[in-house]
Amino acid sequence: MTERAADGTGVRGRRKRPTMLDVAREAGVALRTVSRVVNEDPTVGSHLVSRVQAAISALDYVPDERARQLRRGVTGTIGAAVRNLTDAHPVLGAIDHNAREAGLTVLAMSTEDEEAREREVVTSMCRRRVDGIIIEPISSNHQYLSAEVESGLPVVAVDRPLSGLEADTVLSDNAAGIGTAFRHLVLHGHRRIAYIGDHERIFTGRERAAAFRACVAAHGGPLDGMVHPGAVEPDRVVAALQTALGGPEPATALIAGNAATSIEVLRHLGAEAGRLAIVGFDDFLLADILRPALTVIAQDDAAIGRTAIELLLARGADPTHPVRTVTLPVTLVPRGSGELPPA
Amino acid sequence: MTERAADGTGVRGRRKRPTMLDVAREAGVALRTVSRVVNEDPTVGSHLVSRVQAAISALDYVPDERARQLRRGVTGTIGAAVRNLTDAHPVLGAIDHNAREAGLTVLAMSTEDEEAREREVVTSMCRRRVDGIIIEPISSNHQYLSAEVESGLPVVAVDRPLSGLEADTVLSDNAAGIGTAFRHLVLHGHRRIAYIGDHERIFTGRERAAAFRACVAAHGGPLDGMVHPGAVEPDRVVAALQTALGGPEPATALIAGNAATSIEVLRHLGAEAGRLAIVGFDDFLLADILRPALTVIAQDDAAIGRTAIELLLARGADPTHPVRTVTLPVTLVPRGSGELPPA
Repeated sequence: MTERAADGTGVRGRRKRPTMLDVAREAGVALRTVSRVVNEDPTVGSHLVSRVQAAISALDYVPDERARQLRRGVTGTIGAAVRNLTDAHPVLGAIDHNAREAGLTVLAMSTEDEEAREREVVTSMCRRRVDGIIIEPISSNHQYLSAEVESGLPVVAVDRPLSGLEADTVLSDNAAGIGTAFRHLVLHGHRRIAYIGDHERIFTGRERAAAFRACVAAHGGPLDGMVHPGAVEPDRVVAALQTALGGPEPATALIAGNAATSIEVLRHLGAEAGRLAIVGFDDFLLADILRPALTVIAQDDAAIGRTAIELLLARGADPTHPVRTVTLPVTLVPRGSGELPPA
Repeated sequence: MTERAADGTGVRGRRKRPTMLDVAREAGVALRTVSRVVNEDPTVGSHLVSRVQAAISALDYVPDERARQLRRGVTGTIGAAVRNLTDAHPVLGAIDHNAREAGLTVLAMSTEDEEAREREVVTSMCRRRVDGIIIEPISSNHQYLSAEVESGLPVVAVDRPLSGLEADTVLSDNAAGIGTAFRHLVLHGHRRIAYIGDHERIFTGRERAAAFRACVAAHGGPLDGMVHPGAVEPDRVVAALQTALGGPEPATALIAGNAATSIEVLRHLGAEAGRLAIVGFDDFLLADILRPALTVIAQDDAAIGRTAIELLLARGADPTHPVRTVTLPVTLVPRGSGELPPA
């Protein structure tokens, strides 16, 4: 462990430093070219390298310590603002693992899915001079981060995009996941398929409910009483389930929009669980030892964590490159519950 | 949110401050009396209050900002060094919840149960000037924290004590938990009861295995092939299970020493799970919807988190009071698996 000051200012921190932009002006090249030279990109022509190096010498330019720490990955700490610290969080685990591989330490804080709390937690991370932030966003407006982002703090959103602020983002393919689940149930003979999932004010809840409606429409099936986005609370989930399973034409299959919904549904059905075909979005510990074991659409937690760290490091190394959104594929894991025939 | 510097030095931070001990000497009273006056303890006699206040004025004493922040609970951040950030962690959730109630923010980091990693993470927290640290200890030596503790950093250990350093500690009653589980199985007719649990180099693993051996001895039962502490890895757990269930006199009941062991056992037994009586130490999500549902010894996660925060706040308010260890009771939750008769 090094003893460098945690705020990364190093020995030169107190005076106004020349910026990468100053170097670009001095050298008469694009900002991006300076960035590529500083990051030792081998594809830059040698005459450009010489001009940039001359400007760097002339201005006594020192690359930003924060970006350097991220690149070197020696002393850096990154903040992870996640929904909560109680539940299992394999993506956070993967972020932690990949950060460690890169020599970074992860500091996790919980937003409790509250807007005010998210802002408080993220601001606290900034005050603590983290070298980057990975965030599972909940706020409807992330303008409060814009000054930090403009000053070079790498920020990556996972699971949902930021609002009102461009940032590198890692998403799962929600639409393909719902489509795959729907098709799987249709292939097993189901015609009346219901969906219970998260509130549509949440990005993933909105994407999954919208994809489900599209599937039903494409299939010519009924929508009435079949689509139930809302709060993931026992009473609401049970009421939605009763609506879907009641009436003259009850659903014979269900897509649960997230793990918490799957669990509430299974808890309510108890021994009756084997009579309703179910595909759950998101895998969870023990889904494989339930009876019937739960068929799920699994996100690639390891890839999400790895990609988030990669985007953060790339942003730290080159603050100027265009913002990227990476959408990762999901996988159907058939285990029994999704292969039941219509009752 | 206030804009006070995160390191809590405030406006007076740079010069050498008079300490509480200086005030005690000046007033001719015990250190503890100064602490009680500073903390506005109403039980201190008025003549003592006057003497202490006179000394405070004379020395221009300002109570330590770090302790003040903890007491006021406005700007403080506390670090939580936990085993990992992947798995569900209800105690961490309870720490986060209670910290928030006290106006504190929790910053969690994972030690991955590695000694070197723990030290790195905890040192990083100290560099970031957290106002207190809650730690699930793994190191065999916590001397590296002694300077920070002596300088007034409140540190609380949960689940296991620190080694080589006294600190406030919150434990669960491991011996009573094993005793309760054992007695429950005996009352359901079992005479050959096995134990599979964590490695004995881990405090909880050691306490639980020792308690189990005591139960067997007290009951006059066989120990051979019945006690299996070790790494919680699928192969090791399965091998231990095969030993316990093999031979001419197989175990008819099992105590699983932690949730991860319970899960490995259930995963291996599959549909055979209903033929072995099982009590698991530690509850976990979905234990209630397994078939048979898992009987567990449940720790009081909410009380553990609340107590950890209370001890931290008390230590911040009065760094001089004696170190405390709080051992919290555990509860048997019968759900089916522990009530099965001998096969």
